[in-house]
Amino acid sequence: MNMMLKTHSCGTLTKKDVGQTVTLNGWVQRRRDLGGVLFIDLRDRTGIVQTVFNPDFSGDALAIADRARNEYVLAVTGKVVERDPETYNANLATGEIEIRVTEIEVMNAAKTPPFPIEDGVEVDESLRLKYRYLDLRRPEMQKTLLLRSKSAKIFRDYLDNEGFIEVETPILTKSTPEGARDYLVPSRVHEGEFFALPQSPQIFKQLLMVGGLERYYQIARCFRDEDLRADRQPEFTQVDIETSFLSQDQLLGMMEQLSARLLRETVGVELELPFQRITYADAMNKYGSDKPDLRFGLEIEDITDIVSGSDVKVFASVAAGGGVVKALNAKGCASWSRKELDDLQPFAARYGGKGLAWITVKDGEWRGPIVKFLKEEEIAALTERLGVEEGDLLTFSADKPKVVADVLGNLRLKLGRDLGLIDDSKFKFAWVVDFPLLGWDEEAKRYVAEHHPFTRPKEEDLHYFDTDPGKIRAQAYDLVLNGYEVGGGSMRIYKREVQEQMFKALGFTMEEAHEKFGFLLDAFDYGTPPHGGIAFGFDRLVMLLAGRTNLRETIAFPKTASATDLLCDAPSEVELSQLEQLHIRTVLKPKPVAAAAAGAPAGESNQ
Amino acid sequence: MNMMLKTHSCGTLTKKDVGQTVTLNGWVQRRRDLGGVLFIDLRDRTGIVQTVFNPDFSGDALAIADRARNEYVLAVTGKVVERDPETYNANLATGEIEIRVTEIEVMNAAKTPPFPIEDGVEVDESLRLKYRYLDLRRPEMQKTLLLRSKSAKIFRDYLDNEGFIEVETPILTKSTPEGARDYLVPSRVHEGEFFALPQSPQIFKQLLMVGGLERYYQIARCFRDEDLRADRQPEFTQVDIETSFLSQDQLLGMMEQLSARLLRETVGVELELPFQRITYADAMNKYGSDKPDLRFGLEIEDITDIVSGSDVKVFASVAAGGGVVKALNAKGCASWSRKELDDLQPFAARYGGKGLAWITVKDGEWRGPIVKFLKEEEIAALTERLGVEEGDLLTFSADKPKVVADVLGNLRLKLGRDLGLIDDSKFKFAWVVDFPLLGWDEEAKRYVAEHHPFTRPKEEDLHYFDTDPGKIRAQAYDLVLNGYEVGGGSMRIYKREVQEQMFKALGFTMEEAHEKFGFLLDAFDYGTPPHGGIAFGFDRLVMLLAGRTNLRETIAFPKTASATDLLCDAPSEVELSQLEQLHIRTVLKPKPVAAAAAGAPAGESNQ
Repeated sequence: MNMMLKTHSCGTLTKKDVGQTVTLNGWVQRRRDLGGVLFIDLRDRTGIVQTVFNPDFSGDALAIADRARNEYVLAVTGKVVERDPETYNANLATGEIEIRVTEIEVMNAAKTPPFPIEDGVEVDESLRLKYRYLDLRRPEMQKTLLLRSKSAKIFRDYLDNEGFIEVETPILTKSTPEGARDYLVPSRVHEGEFFALPQSPQIFKQLLMVGGLERYYQIARCFRDEDLRADRQPEFTQVDIETSFLSQDQLLGMMEQLSARLLRETVGVELELPFQRITYADAMNKYGSDKPDLRFGLEIEDITDIVSGSDVKVFASVAAGGGVVKALNAKGCASWSRKELDDLQPFAARYGGKGLAWITVKDGEWRGPIVKFLKEEEIAALTERLGVEEGDLLTFSADKPKVVADVLGNLRLKLGRDLGLIDDSKFKFAWVVDFPLLGWDEEAKRYVAEHHPFTRPKEEDLHYFDTDPGKIRAQAYDLVLNGYEVGGGSMRIYKREVQEQMFKALGFTMEEAHEKFGFLLDAFDYGTPPHGGIAFGFDRLVMLLAGRTNLRETIAFPKTASATDLLCDAPSEVELSQLEQLHIRTVLKPKPVAAAAAGAPAGESNQ
Repeated sequence: MNMMLKTHSCGTLTKKDVGQTVTLNGWVQRRRDLGGVLFIDLRDRTGIVQTVFNPDFSGDALAIADRARNEYVLAVTGKVVERDPETYNANLATGEIEIRVTEIEVMNAAKTPPFPIEDGVEVDESLRLKYRYLDLRRPEMQKTLLLRSKSAKIFRDYLDNEGFIEVETPILTKSTPEGARDYLVPSRVHEGEFFALPQSPQIFKQLLMVGGLERYYQIARCFRDEDLRADRQPEFTQVDIETSFLSQDQLLGMMEQLSARLLRETVGVELELPFQRITYADAMNKYGSDKPDLRFGLEIEDITDIVSGSDVKVFASVAAGGGVVKALNAKGCASWSRKELDDLQPFAARYGGKGLAWITVKDGEWRGPIVKFLKEEEIAALTERLGVEEGDLLTFSADKPKVVADVLGNLRLKLGRDLGLIDDSKFKFAWVVDFPLLGWDEEAKRYVAEHHPFTRPKEEDLHYFDTDPGKIRAQAYDLVLNGYEVGGGSMRIYKREVQEQMFKALGFTMEEAHEKFGFLLDAFDYGTPPHGGIAFGFDRLVMLLAGRTNLRETIAFPKTASATDLLCDAPSEVELSQLEQLHIRTVLKPKPVAAAAAGAPAGESNQ
């Protein structure tokens, strides 16, 4: 028996195909019987087309088609004809034609799916994940996976054209001493030893530069065994890039060209180049975030100098204690209700703030709990600095810089959304640069690397190693898009003397450093070129291009927030003999009976 | 301080660049002082160029360059000049020019490498793997990695152009009930449970077809925890492909076009299409192998019918016992020495044979231990079947079919090499088709799937399910190249009734099948399209294109035969706290003191 295999695809047929005899393969989207004439909408990857079964031309095919139900797989042969203009369907790309079927083959039957195969229906996500193979038939999932595939192709084409070599680095590798929690893989051959899955190909990409490859890239799977949030997956994909003999400016310029091409060829948006560059310090000051959403203004203003001698006690005392006082002018929000104003307090608390002072400007008058403590000249200075006008709502946070940034940065984002300041069709890229090299770890009482211990300091800040290491800025950069970090990287240290200074600042002797980073430091002794790189968070980038808000929508077979694959039911128990071969055994805590009965997996995908 | 960053690459400069001032970055390949004039050969990814430091034009740069040693990283600026034609170096692409250096920067110093950075030097492989970052600087390693990257690009470009979607499937997945040994990953969140690393994306690619993606590909990492041979790695790469609504012929034709493009654009060879197709039965009969090297003839002949009544006892008794007698005519080998002829016996033994009879044809006379037992008509029949001529050496194997195939198949390969019948510049592709669907497992006393339980039987053999399942041929195919299997796949079962017959033949009830393959069988109930696919062994394919004989040469950071990464020293011991978080502990056998002291790792990389 020869199968009736497709000559055309459902979604691509138009009036220009009228008169042709075509064979189509696809799934039954919908089936209607109108007085003995059967209409079946047939769906494949390209779209939907209407097929018609009529006693006048379909013969036996009509009776066979009559038994088909939704999601049956059919092969049909028939002639493309133009529909009666009155029955044109403007919702379908193929809406001006239909197929008069003369032959049919039921390639396969189908049970009734647990949810309709179409966009926009409300389905519990855990059900979608369990039946992912049906969920993937929905047009919006296919569109997103196509966009993902296309995006990868654009990255590869661009990089290939610029002389980058794609190199695959190991998945079974060594547990790293710093960073997130590793996934481990017990070795069968080497008793008691373990591989680790890579958190990123960081070490390998640097070794490839030592190896003289000059330009490397890889669309690499990475693994972090962290507690998950909505925008994290235990395995994720990054476009990993490393170069030698390039300056930071050259590399960033190249990545801008790449991003511009990506946006042009996926969403049809022409980006303005070069991207805005903003220092980490400015980003934190003006937007309260190191990944500012720059699609709107609404900048935060530092008013510490104005209120340091204020009668508003909390302002004065915070200023005296080394804290900061900052304000955000919510234009036009003076009309907020008392309830809305009251809600500012729990909002601030959510981000660690102790409170949020406010002032409304209505009918030329300043109102609010703190107004009576403000001096004439403070009001004048605030009016000028904050550009105060009739109808404004002024909000104030006074605390440690980090808390103020979190509170006002998040208030800024909320206002941006609530006030409709954000143009959702806009893709606003920017570089955040000049990150601090080191951060002070209060617990460990030592400096830790903000990026990683091989990040190159800015040349002009090297002298701070001896005086004030906290002031050193790094040649590190993040690429932000609409308030998300979509990429990040750094130039790397390649001179031994700088590396030694770095380890000293981190409180390691060279011996300790060698214990931690042995072979990488060895490698650096054999002629390391100046190098640096970047990694793009591919899942997140695709999510933003696709206009989705959940990473799982961009991944064919994602895991839930509890790192479960609901489709294959992984992880799962394994045979004892498997563990014996790996020289391990499980050590289980006795489970309370109640917990065991609670059936945890069902709700896990919705966090 | 601004770095002197490259304006050009070393290996690309030619006479057309004469007169230009260029800046180059690279590694010192060689340094010669000829009477106060210093010549430094500078190397980057593109090749080597000669730079000259002369007191006449180099100023301070000469003294700085004088301190440089092999593998120092230099930046030089200078003018491209033509060399005196008498000093042209024909071994270098840049041999007609040199750079008169006026400025230099030592970007980095280098310790003396443990082996010379050049092709063709004898270096112990374990040393190369430990210092892989230096090994990768060797031109032939860079050439191979470039070829690998280019090959991946060609696969992607071709498949993208044919409407294939690249989809990433999970690395953290579920342990499979059949197949090779899994690598396991303990779950932290789900106590006592484990992920497994995929042996291939087989299940996911079929689910993507159920999901309506129609054409999928992925260059996928796969994992098998097997005892390794020279051509195996614990993690390996396959180009994984699956399609819906295509016949086997359509798919194979597409893969031929793809292969032709790959060969054209990498090694510049134009392949003849379509590829030869040979059935599994013919391949075993004629070449004693299911992956025959078809670059040469030397076919094996079945002579069982001729000698079944022979006075050569072993021939007659093997024929009577259901075995086969086959012969290979080694043309022109009648002149072999007695020693060479004697060596045939241990050769046969190595492949499980009990012996190898032989006859030389010299001066018109047949000589050898069995000649006297051959009847006139047997000699006549053999002369005709084997095309016997003066100077031939006839070899005979009599045993079970599998043993005869192994012995004569391997003898054929050895003769092919020894007699110079193999043209090494040739790339001879062929499809081996019609593999048996089932094999009889003597131990388990049941049939097992030769490919996997979802392989589609040939339509015309379906009736054998009821009578003689061993006779069913599968819609399965291997792509062989020069005696290596470089790809393989099958059409899959998509009809429930066929799947049930298959499980029945394998001795499973549908309930047992459900326990093993649960969610995949569930998926098949919801409208599964006819589908099938293939996977290319990417590492091996690149190895053959690069003319190498070892998979490790094609992988940037390979593992040794004992699954060790000598560069990062993985696997390794981990912190006890890491194991506690994963709810496991190690169970170690006490090591005998002698074994512990033997220092196993050192020699492990060679085999």
